[in-house]
Amino acid sequence: MSVLVVGSTALDSIKTPHAENPRLLGGSASHAAVAASFFAPVKLVGVVGEDFPRRYLALYRRHGIDLSGLQQVPGKTFHWSGEYEADMNHRRTLCTELGVFEQFTPRLPPEHRRTPFVLLANIAPALQHHVLDQIERARFVMADTMDLWLRIARPDLLRLLRRVDAFVLNDSEARQLTGRDNLLAALRHIHRLGPRYVIIKKGSHGSMLSGPDGVFLCPAYPLCKVVDPTGAGDSFAGALMGYLAGAAGPVQRHLRRAMVYGSVVASFCCEGFGLLRTTRVRRDQIEQRVRELERLTRF
Amino acid sequence: MSVLVVGSTALDSIKTPHAENPRLLGGSASHAAVAASFFAPVKLVGVVGEDFPRRYLALYRRHGIDLSGLQQVPGKTFHWSGEYEADMNHRRTLCTELGVFEQFTPRLPPEHRRTPFVLLANIAPALQHHVLDQIERARFVMADTMDLWLRIARPDLLRLLRRVDAFVLNDSEARQLTGRDNLLAALRHIHRLGPRYVIIKKGSHGSMLSGPDGVFLCPAYPLCKVVDPTGAGDSFAGALMGYLAGAAGPVQRHLRRAMVYGSVVASFCCEGFGLLRTTRVRRDQIEQRVRELERLTRF
Repeated sequence: MSVLVVGSTALDSIKTPHAENPRLLGGSASHAAVAASFFAPVKLVGVVGEDFPRRYLALYRRHGIDLSGLQQVPGKTFHWSGEYEADMNHRRTLCTELGVFEQFTPRLPPEHRRTPFVLLANIAPALQHHVLDQIERARFVMADTMDLWLRIARPDLLRLLRRVDAFVLNDSEARQLTGRDNLLAALRHIHRLGPRYVIIKKGSHGSMLSGPDGVFLCPAYPLCKVVDPTGAGDSFAGALMGYLAGAAGPVQRHLRRAMVYGSVVASFCCEGFGLLRTTRVRRDQIEQRVRELERLTRF
Repeated sequence: MSVLVVGSTALDSIKTPHAENPRLLGGSASHAAVAASFFAPVKLVGVVGEDFPRRYLALYRRHGIDLSGLQQVPGKTFHWSGEYEADMNHRRTLCTELGVFEQFTPRLPPEHRRTPFVLLANIAPALQHHVLDQIERARFVMADTMDLWLRIARPDLLRLLRRVDAFVLNDSEARQLTGRDNLLAALRHIHRLGPRYVIIKKGSHGSMLSGPDGVFLCPAYPLCKVVDPTGAGDSFAGALMGYLAGAAGPVQRHLRRAMVYGSVVASFCCEGFGLLRTTRVRRDQIEQRVRELERLTRF
């Protein structure tokens, strides 16, 4: 089955203590769509400007990503630039130029409306609602978010939580949303806001799933060297949804393994700037890291 | 087989944002010895002053702990007081009164010298050396430490690392010791300093073991509420060594499960001030949390 991914499609300029890389392909939807494409057919919904490099369109296509929902319009592509601190766990935004994103209204081609798996990657909750309004009979809808929307669009986000099957956010966002420091308490709190499944990402410390089958502690794949963690969370969510879409049978049965695959694809994402490493990964390398995670956690 | 535990035996006054508890039974050896006692016979080596409450001696005895290596001498018992921040991951020391600890020279009774499992819980590396000098033919020696010794007794500590089978420290100490931010790199670095096994504790994020069988990612047992994390690391090390001493066959075969038991006993430790919760735990409750950790991590 296929996955619809809606989110930002951007150019990212990323600084770390070790290097600087201007105008890489980025955005939540780009990372999520490429990550999902290892496991299932992907339809991308987003917007880019006239300046969007043709090689990035070719890159999406090489991953078999359906671009009929990607609008290209006059103006500049959304541009984000940020800087990471030495420990790679904290970043600050240097600038955000919304460009064509400011006027973005996602319009789903008719053939996209019945996509069974829908990932509302990180964009404004109002746009996530707008996509959901066009979806007919999805099997599984997951939404991601970021701290910004918790601050400036909280009512929209709370309304969204009642419309999705799963909600994914990171640990500091979970604390910000719920006011609870303890993550088990935060998970319970978020369930009460609507979603049947809640996933809290903890960066290099792994992630937690909470759902009808209880809690799952998902390990992060340990890396010797983190080059650039931008997009790791989006890759995690994308690979997770791709794995679910590619697996037969009920979602509930596959969710734990889907998180492990998410974790592994996110680990590749961190090993290169932007999508440079992820786009070079082969499926057998993903499988190898999944087997390694089995060995690393067995007791 | 039995475990020898040497370390500090103290009175702890602990402040958290929620409560204040004066003169609780504390110290690295107290926590480690009680934790180990669930799995194997324990011999405690330490020193206390005349003010050491008799009820704490009775408490050790209730756990079957052999006190023939515990010296009681004129003067005051080592007293530590500290305060935790809201997130319970950072603490600051308010005061440290060494008392009788200042003159402490561990002397092992002859029958203690051939104890097969030796835990050098956190005390000055010079004292850890002094204990090792008296040990004959141990099967497995593990040392713990703290940031203070990395600052003021680094040469002693580096010399110790060449004399032990296993070394346990927390993530910030590992970074401090090696100058490496990445924990896999820190593990490799510490192996080169001597120990065959290295364990890095990451608080609520679990722990990592590195040894001849590769790396093991050990989960922390997730808690709804952390009351007081003081002694959690000592409890982890103590339960780990106790489990190894209680298990038949080669250490290598049992080390992963030993860490899981360490993790579980540490979780109980965090649920009460000082040793208040740990001393009330039953073995079947420990087994139950180990089974829960299996369920929480299976994929």
